[in-house]
Amino acid sequence: MAKRSYPLAKVYGLLEPGPVVLLTTAGKTRPNVMTLSWLTMVEFEPPLVACVVSNRDYSFELLRKSGECAINIPTAELAQKVVSIGNHTGRNMDKFQSLGLTQKPASLVGAPLIAECYASLECRVYDTRMVAKYGLFILEVVKAWVDTAVKDPKTLHHRGKGAFMVAGETIKLRSKMK
Amino acid sequence: MAKRSYPLAKVYGLLEPGPVVLLTTAGKTRPNVMTLSWLTMVEFEPPLVACVVSNRDYSFELLRKSGECAINIPTAELAQKVVSIGNHTGRNMDKFQSLGLTQKPASLVGAPLIAECYASLECRVYDTRMVAKYGLFILEVVKAWVDTAVKDPKTLHHRGKGAFMVAGETIKLRSKMK
Repeated sequence: MAKRSYPLAKVYGLLEPGPVVLLTTAGKTRPNVMTLSWLTMVEFEPPLVACVVSNRDYSFELLRKSGECAINIPTAELAQKVVSIGNHTGRNMDKFQSLGLTQKPASLVGAPLIAECYASLECRVYDTRMVAKYGLFILEVVKAWVDTAVKDPKTLHHRGKGAFMVAGETIKLRSKMK
Repeated sequence: MAKRSYPLAKVYGLLEPGPVVLLTTAGKTRPNVMTLSWLTMVEFEPPLVACVVSNRDYSFELLRKSGECAINIPTAELAQKVVSIGNHTGRNMDKFQSLGLTQKPASLVGAPLIAECYASLECRVYDTRMVAKYGLFILEVVKAWVDTAVKDPKTLHHRGKGAFMVAGETIKLRSKMK
C-alpha cells in the first residue's frame, strides 16, 4: 500500500466506523502485533483514542514498557491473517514472520507499521489512569499514514467468534455533524 | 421491532462492529436522545462500555444527574433520523416527538428505549473518573433487548460529516477468539 502522510484532524473518520485494527508494539527482541476491536475516539485534535488491552495479552507488557504503538487498519483480504494474529500469542512466536506481514519503520515511534494495511496511526500512550482497573489506555495519535487511493475501504468489523461484518456501501446525508 | 430479552454475555457482539448508536436519557420534563459513535466495549461480563459524551451536549447533564441511559442501535432505514438527532439539541426540542420516534419503557432504568431500533441496552453509570477530563463514562449494561429476527443488521457506521458506511455481508472464519 502506498501510504502518505494524512492530516491528524481527519483521523477520527478512520476509526469512527469501528474497524478491527492490528496493534503493533516494539519489543526488546522483536515487535509484536495483536488483533483489537475494543477502541474508540476520545478527542478530535490532537486525536486521542481509548483502547482496551487485556493484561493477559503479551502486547500489554510491551505497550506499558515502551509507551508507544501503532494502530494499523486492515481490509477484508487480510481477514485470515487478522484471525491468525488474534489466535496466537507473540510470547513465543514472531507473528510478522510466520504470517508474512511486512514491517515498515514508523517516523515517530518504535513500533513498526504494517505495509499491507491501508492506514497506520503512530501513537504514544497519553494517560494510564484506567490501565490497572480496565486495561484501558488513552493514546495520542502523533502521525497518520493512509493510502488515499483506497476510497471505500472494505474494513472488517468483528461480530464475535470469528464472524466479521465487511464494510458495505457508503451513503452521504446532509449533516452539520463533524 | 419485536425485541426480546438477550443474554448479557452476548452484548459485546452487538457493539464490537462499531455501529452508530442512539443514547437515550431521562430528564425532569422529558427524555432526550443523542447520536453517538464514540464508544467501545471494556469488559465482557458484566458488560462494561466506555462512551464519550461532550459536556457541551444536553445529554451530558442528563446522564450525569440520572446515572442511567439506554444505548439503542439503529439500522439504515433510520439514517435520516440518526442525522437529525445529531443535528439538534434537546435543550429546546422534544426530539422523540418531532422526529416520530416511539418510546418504550425500560425495565431497570428511567431512560426510554427506542421501539424503532433493533437492539436496546439498559445501562447504569459505573465509573465517572474519566468524565471531567474526557467526557468518558464507563457504563454497565444491566439489561439487553434484541429483535433476534434481524440476522445481519444493516447498522450505520459514521465516516464523518454525514457519510455512513452501511454494514455489508458477514463472513465467518474459524477462530478461537471470543
